[in-house]
Amino acid sequence: MAPLRWYSVVVEAQDHRALAAWWAEALGWDTAVATDDEVVLIPPWAEQLGPTLEFVQVPPGLVFVPVEHAKSGKNRLHLDLAPHTSQEREAEIARLVALGARRIDVGQGDDATWEVLADPDGNEFCVLSSRDR
Amino acid sequence: MAPLRWYSVVVEAQDHRALAAWWAEALGWDTAVATDDEVVLIPPWAEQLGPTLEFVQVPPGLVFVPVEHAKSGKNRLHLDLAPHTSQEREAEIARLVALGARRIDVGQGDDATWEVLADPDGNEFCVLSSRDR
Repeated sequence: MAPLRWYSVVVEAQDHRALAAWWAEALGWDTAVATDDEVVLIPPWAEQLGPTLEFVQVPPGLVFVPVEHAKSGKNRLHLDLAPHTSQEREAEIARLVALGARRIDVGQGDDATWEVLADPDGNEFCVLSSRDR
Repeated sequence: MAPLRWYSVVVEAQDHRALAAWWAEALGWDTAVATDDEVVLIPPWAEQLGPTLEFVQVPPGLVFVPVEHAKSGKNRLHLDLAPHTSQEREAEIARLVALGARRIDVGQGDDATWEVLADPDGNEFCVLSSRDR
């Protein structure tokens, strides 16, 4: 069994509450904690699923923390999201764009099977091809 | 149910195979894919747990992709790891340091309950206080 649980991904933001609210809407996640120091998002199934899982198996949350500096340059880490094959992938991307995401060009080329987007803070993320698993 | 699955965190690296190998050792995760384009790490319980979960509930993996540029500046996104209360937290941190992590100062102060480390590429991550969940 793995020794440490991957507990969360922490995202720095100048307005951590606003960016957290955006991601909560984008993913359909719940806000577990919201203070001046951090906003913690967890998936809506965390409470139901949690007790059935070993400690290290509990999936990571997303934590937004305030910083003074703006994002600069392309992020070294980014999130990939994927729709299920039963979903309308283009409609999902359009929904994110309607929420405030932007389609961006990071040199992915025309043949890329993934769409590159940026959240309202400019953090890059991808929507992958649809898949079953 | 959430519309999109958080599929992975993608980490850019100049030597993506080396950094992936480091994280596989640090977390005790398995290498699912290893090519010149990417190395995909998944938790060792993914295969056993996967079929019991809804699509969106499957926990994210870690993907390492090659880039030419070195890391510059503090990452906007970072990982937090947490030990269970049954574990020796200091021994876990010492294990990571022995693997090649460095303790770093990002201004966290002496009162911080988390230890700030950097992986061999300089990517910041934290080891949180021990917890049960």
